[in-house]
Amino acid sequence: MLKRSVQLLSAALAVSATSSPLPWQKNGTFGYGTLSTTRSNNGSTLRVNIQNGPINLYDAKLSTDMTALLNSLKPANIPSNTTHPPPKVVVFSSDNPDFWIGHYDINLILPGGTNLSTNETNALFASAINGHATGSGNEFLVQCDMAFAGPNAVVGSLEGAVGGLQGNGGIQYLVRKLGMAKAAEYLLAATSIGAQEAAAVGWVNHAYSSAEELREAVDALAYRLSLFTAGSLNGTKTAIRAWGPSPEQSDADIATILRLFPEEIEHLPRLIELSDNQTANAFELGALRDIKDVEELVIQ
Amino acid sequence: MLKRSVQLLSAALAVSATSSPLPWQKNGTFGYGTLSTTRSNNGSTLRVNIQNGPINLYDAKLSTDMTALLNSLKPANIPSNTTHPPPKVVVFSSDNPDFWIGHYDINLILPGGTNLSTNETNALFASAINGHATGSGNEFLVQCDMAFAGPNAVVGSLEGAVGGLQGNGGIQYLVRKLGMAKAAEYLLAATSIGAQEAAAVGWVNHAYSSAEELREAVDALAYRLSLFTAGSLNGTKTAIRAWGPSPEQSDADIATILRLFPEEIEHLPRLIELSDNQTANAFELGALRDIKDVEELVIQ
Amino acid sequence: MLKRSVQLLSAALAVSATSSPLPWQKNGTFGYGTLSTTRSNNGSTLRVNIQNGPINLYDAKLSTDMTALLNSLKPANIPSNTTHPPPKVVVFSSDNPDFWIGHYDINLILPGGTNLSTNETNALFASAINGHATGSGNEFLVQCDMAFAGPNAVVGSLEGAVGGLQGNGGIQYLVRKLGMAKAAEYLLAATSIGAQEAAAVGWVNHAYSSAEELREAVDALAYRLSLFTAGSLNGTKTAIRAWGPSPEQSDADIATILRLFPEEIEHLPRLIELSDNQTANAFELGALRDIKDVEELVIQ
Repeated sequence: MLKRSVQLLSAALAVSATSSPLPWQKNGTFGYGTLSTTRSNNGSTLRVNIQNGPINLYDAKLSTDMTALLNSLKPANIPSNTTHPPPKVVVFSSDNPDFWIGHYDINLILPGGTNLSTNETNALFASAINGHATGSGNEFLVQCDMAFAGPNAVVGSLEGAVGGLQGNGGIQYLVRKLGMAKAAEYLLAATSIGAQEAAAVGWVNHAYSSAEELREAVDALAYRLSLFTAGSLNGTKTAIRAWGPSPEQSDADIATILRLFPEEIEHLPRLIELSDNQTANAFELGALRDIKDVEELVIQ
Repeated sequence: MLKRSVQLLSAALAVSATSSPLPWQKNGTFGYGTLSTTRSNNGSTLRVNIQNGPINLYDAKLSTDMTALLNSLKPANIPSNTTHPPPKVVVFSSDNPDFWIGHYDINLILPGGTNLSTNETNALFASAINGHATGSGNEFLVQCDMAFAGPNAVVGSLEGAVGGLQGNGGIQYLVRKLGMAKAAEYLLAATSIGAQEAAAVGWVNHAYSSAEELREAVDALAYRLSLFTAGSLNGTKTAIRAWGPSPEQSDADIATILRLFPEEIEHLPRLIELSDNQTANAFELGALRDIKDVEELVIQ
Repeated sequence: MLKRSVQLLSAALAVSATSSPLPWQKNGTFGYGTLSTTRSNNGSTLRVNIQNGPINLYDAKLSTDMTALLNSLKPANIPSNTTHPPPKVVVFSSDNPDFWIGHYDINLILPGGTNLSTNETNALFASAINGHATGSGNEFLVQCDMAFAGPNAVVGSLEGAVGGLQGNGGIQYLVRKLGMAKAAEYLLAATSIGAQEAAAVGWVNHAYSSAEELREAVDALAYRLSLFTAGSLNGTKTAIRAWGPSPEQSDADIATILRLFPEEIEHLPRLIELSDNQTANAFELGALRDIKDVEELVIQ
């Protein structure tokens, strides 16, 4: 369902591209307003602020806006006569003090892949995380080209605790970052870790000790990259991503998720209950780091 | 020869599975008694203690018992009407103070691969190492899903010093853990390292400062995993192991071992002599970390 | 052009191999004299000292000498009746206090790949770096089997700052050492780092605190490897390098470089000017670590 709506949206974008500004061509919000954009470095850098309720839930609104943004950056959707060239670097951050991108909205019945692919654009994607990036949030994080963490960053997967697994490359990219054994340890345990440990094991590039340092470091890097040619940046990105997972591998993981879904769905009402329907309560903020939270969720 | 006996054994297991308990269905020993099993977490976790003489030599007895255990965990060999579902996690440890799993018994003429594959089962394999895991022991260690070390852990390969190389994925999995250059440094030098260095370079997941801490940490992880569904654990394991070596690559390494074997065999009598026929003497415990031991072994 | 001359040279070597000593069969220099060889451990180790002007520029002379050395080590070019077996280990170092191998000579019009392949020989390659290894120098470094750094080592890529990217496996091997995200951060930023950071992220195997320690450690390792059989060393090297990039991947990167070259060439006069025609001035020694140097280079 999501996949089909993405295709329709993509077609719509291709048609309307010259008549209305694309999301990255102006400052402000678009669609459902879950993402707000700020251009800098003469348009070479696009800052995207994520804002979607108390936990930046990856729900239908955020999913639609994110898909619209990613599709607008696909080369085929960029009008050749544009007065604004596309950004070289896209930085994703959130001014929500606790969440960067939360997990998938478990009130939705998951019908297919969420199509969170950052792989099909020429722009570089940098995550600047100073809150939770778990579940779908982590799927998005690990496929970005680079990720930088502030002191409040929490990264992890909780799918395993409810009978599922990460998709959209969430496992495949993490294995390439951490190696098989460390990825197994974290993913199988369905747990989350903080910024320092994430940097030590390679889940993020660096951990900074304050939100200010994080912002300054990412801005400095984005400015430096903005000085280089789009051809060189994209050529290097393309060469690096040749090491990423194949589409077949990602499809295999999605197939496993769908196969396990009948078992997973039985756990979801309890997850909604414990999180007070996905609000920033103690259970949600705990991100399953405490075994007691796991027992509350799983043991009937 | 070993390969053929494994196939015969596998056939025997398939036939007899419903009439006698499989190794993981009860506490105690089986076969030659080199492995003793303890079930916990309602059968979800199987602790396997390795006990085979002074250095836990990977000889015909241990090889046969290990093969029987691994084969009994293959999905095709698990009876559909079993009252005991297979374990979700298998933890390998040893109460031998110096050895976890030692090297291959060099009194045996190596006829083919030792078939140490942990890849064909749905159970997760965790190594809990607080002694030497060298040679065949290391081949087994690196293909486990996760590995945890106590203060007495020693990991390494000594095959290079006698003209051979590691098989059974020993090189291929280590390259994915350490990267090519670090793996080259250790494997070419045919040396061994302790727990702290092993954790720092990614050879094991973590190093703990006492045997008690090691046991508690692995037990806590095994308990946590025991709460999750077998489908989710196995789906994640399968997705992760897609990054592992191909069977063709492992076969190529075995072919190289067999090609080099006529040269390797000339070194083996000296290795038997220096180790007092593979006992826990100073040479064996040294694990070739001292260049003097290498010179004694190699220089005629 | 370079590629063709390499082929001719290779043919010439194959013909002349029995009549004149190959570069590794004697102490001293050969060709243009940019490399001088010293045999030790009874010929099992070959030390190669790099000496080519103030910055060890990777120019036509060094490229020709290096290609001759690498070709002379290809199995097909080693005469079967040689009295000197080829070295087991080749150690590359330089007594230039500031440079190990510098970047490509940008006065040359880059016509094709520089064919810096260490992959086709049986000898092991160890880099012992105590100066700049940037640009082409880094391309060579990362494809060596092992790399060890002294306190003055500086590793990095500057191609991105002038509109190009690293070839010859420069990106592909670095991705396997650092992971995709760290490699992206350094390569996209076209920056360089010192020995300690290089060791921490896995760019080199170890960093030593003095030139003496570096030399002693590499000598000790080379001696240890010299005791082992060539078959075992090569079998292990071959198994490890199965994880390296495919020739198709390296060719794709070279194709991107050639495609971007018309854009890159416009930046090169400014690079020649700022480096006082590639001398060891402050700009060259800065290796683009300071954003001001990048601005001077790129902003018109």
